Amino acid sequence: MARERFAQQGYAATSVRGIATAAGVDSALVHHYFGTKEDLFVASLELRIDPRVIAPTITAGGREEAGERLVRLLLSVWDDEESRLPLMGLVRSVFEPESRALVPEAFGRLILGPVGDALELDEPERRMTLVASQLVGIVVLRYVAQIEPLASAPAETLVATYAPVVQGYLTGPLP
Amino acid sequence: MARERFAQQGYAATSVRGIATAAGVDSALVHHYFGTKEDLFVASLELRIDPRVIAPTITAGGREEAGERLVRLLLSVWDDEESRLPLMGLVRSVFEPESRALVPEAFGRLILGPVGDALELDEPERRMTLVASQLVGIVVLRYVAQIEPLASAPAETLVATYAPVVQGYLTGPLP
Repeated sequence: MARERFAQQGYAATSVRGIATAAGVDSALVHHYFGTKEDLFVASLELRIDPRVIAPTITAGGREEAGERLVRLLLSVWDDEESRLPLMGLVRSVFEPESRALVPEAFGRLILGPVGDALELDEPERRMTLVASQLVGIVVLRYVAQIEPLASAPAETLVATYAPVVQGYLTGPLP
Repeated sequence: MARERFAQQGYAATSVRGIATAAGVDSALVHHYFGTKEDLFVASLELRIDPRVIAPTITAGGREEAGERLVRLLLSVWDDEESRLPLMGLVRSVFEPESRALVPEAFGRLILGPVGDALELDEPERRMTLVASQLVGIVVLRYVAQIEPLASAPAETLVATYAPVVQGYLTGPLP
């Protein structure tokens, strides 16, 4: 219910009051159980971990380690079968016109935006979409389509392969 | 009909005879109208151009230009609205369990495999899945999810950004 509304209307245009009304309950009740609008949004994603804990983990080692940390964390979350299932549903939603914006909005708002801010990148939005374009491709080929030899490559080999590329998108020169 | 069978059974296990039988026609008729099994497979993808013309275009400039040519060709095909529509359907099919293998099989067999062979790459399968992981990510972010600033970036800026990465996957050192 909340997830559909965020997907259809976008985060900014969705109100806790609107969701509460549609659910036939008082908005104070929704606030009581879920907290802020962002908390409700996160809960609606139904992930195993709160994605807001990810950005500090990635930026803790500073700018020069962030690429490697991003790739390693992506692989560790997706390699875990229980985490993968709800994420798979989220990725699929990108291909449904009415929820196309949900995942980019969620990951932009909750993970990539804060990472870009914490690392004080120049052109953070541009850099973060480049990063996302590589990470999403890994997800689609390794976990969704399960293409070999990528699907069964050891995570550390992939970290060594992809970290320099992601680091380049974060802090390298851009055309 | 043919496309569903290729999707469900994979290319190798699908026969022209089986498709003809399921369609209630003689297999000679299918051969007459469509040619070889590969021709039938290509026709079943319903694309605007025959994907088999792509590999020679990419490899014509030799190994050191192949990364740039791959990125530029990907963008020119997807930036064209009429070409994009059937491709969008193919990309979506990766998320349907029964047709997960169709797109990777098609693009591996018809484009990436021949490119890897023509360039005489070491570890062609590994390198080509790395290339695909970046190209697929561009497609998902720029055309499917339409994330800014990637969605409206000029093609030539993206060629300059992504070509060195794709070239590195093709001919650079691997861990």
